[in-house]
Amino acid sequence: MEERRQQLIGVALDLFSRRSPDEVSIDEIAAAAGISRPLVYHYFPGKLSLYEAALKRASDDLAQRFVEPHEGPLGSRLLRVMGRYFDFVDEHGPGFSALMRGGPAVGSSTTNALIDGVRQAAYLQILSHLGVEGPPPARLELVVRSWISLAESTALIWLDGRRVPRRELEVQLVHDFGALAAVSAAHDEEMGALLRRVFADEPADGPFTDLVTRLVALAS
Amino acid sequence: MEERRQQLIGVALDLFSRRSPDEVSIDEIAAAAGISRPLVYHYFPGKLSLYEAALKRASDDLAQRFVEPHEGPLGSRLLRVMGRYFDFVDEHGPGFSALMRGGPAVGSSTTNALIDGVRQAAYLQILSHLGVEGPPPARLELVVRSWISLAESTALIWLDGRRVPRRELEVQLVHDFGALAAVSAAHDEEMGALLRRVFADEPADGPFTDLVTRLVALAS
Repeated sequence: MEERRQQLIGVALDLFSRRSPDEVSIDEIAAAAGISRPLVYHYFPGKLSLYEAALKRASDDLAQRFVEPHEGPLGSRLLRVMGRYFDFVDEHGPGFSALMRGGPAVGSSTTNALIDGVRQAAYLQILSHLGVEGPPPARLELVVRSWISLAESTALIWLDGRRVPRRELEVQLVHDFGALAAVSAAHDEEMGALLRRVFADEPADGPFTDLVTRLVALAS
Repeated sequence: MEERRQQLIGVALDLFSRRSPDEVSIDEIAAAAGISRPLVYHYFPGKLSLYEAALKRASDDLAQRFVEPHEGPLGSRLLRVMGRYFDFVDEHGPGFSALMRGGPAVGSSTTNALIDGVRQAAYLQILSHLGVEGPPPARLELVVRSWISLAESTALIWLDGRRVPRRELEVQLVHDFGALAAVSAAHDEEMGALLRRVFADEPADGPFTDLVTRLVALAS
């Protein structure tokens, strides 16, 4: 029984990666899984419960991709995570768009809790890589959480036409993180001290040094 | 009849500015307006339709606050708009939070269209102030739209505890816009040319020059 449930979730995710979930019917999912429509309803009482189960698996998958060893320069760690993040967005295209733009199940408390859970996983990973333990300063929380929403919207806009190479956006989001942190640091001494500590370990060929080099070239 | 409708919308918005819309009942709205519950239903067939009418008025109000004369330095124009944006967020606190975090009516196509309309109004205003006519380059669209989502999430995080002075965040969002545009310009010549043209007119005491001064001080 659990095996059949997992198979159905996999089939649904595969269909949602090619077309928006609200365009995919239970009949199609049944046909793709090679089972009858009533049998699908035996495992999932309605489309929402199948959708939520698929979202749960995709959320767990995405949160797992945020996990990165605490080794090497921070900018390079974040760049590797951005690569895996865009892999995920690329693989789940229409399903990801529909969900984040307000899909059929948005407003369901299960759906909202899963999305919040992924955001929280990203947030906690970043704090741990920054070496922050316990409740962070308000301005650091603001930079990290608002950058996460920037990464979401960047991925959504990219999916709508893919007019900018994703590799460029992966690097750019790492640079955006540095830039937003620098703006915050330019307004607050505590953030300044944190930024100096973090950037002190960045190598000359790392993404954050690359950003500074590029900005200096731009300004001249 | 139209007058009574408008009065009910005003009463609802006032209640939603103090408590989340899903905690406000039709009975309360009726009581606050001094009319009977059946009469409320006479004007609005259900809570969703009243909610949507209230959201429509709030959306029009917010879009209006984005309008700014095409005069003076761009950074100062954006800073004035940020002041009015935070006024709005401050006035509508719980209603704004509930809506953007996935409130009761999220997923309704009317609600989504109203939210998208406000985002689009902000987007078009910014392009017009940047002097861009016709379809913008993909990278400019990305910077402007992703910054708009950054402004939304910054406002939402601010509402949750108000732990950073809003005036600081208004300036910081203007600085964030400059920083995200600079990162994009550091990756793309067309964005570089646009940024140089825009920043060429910025005065020594404007917000964008202030950002550069602060970042130089931070780096040294």
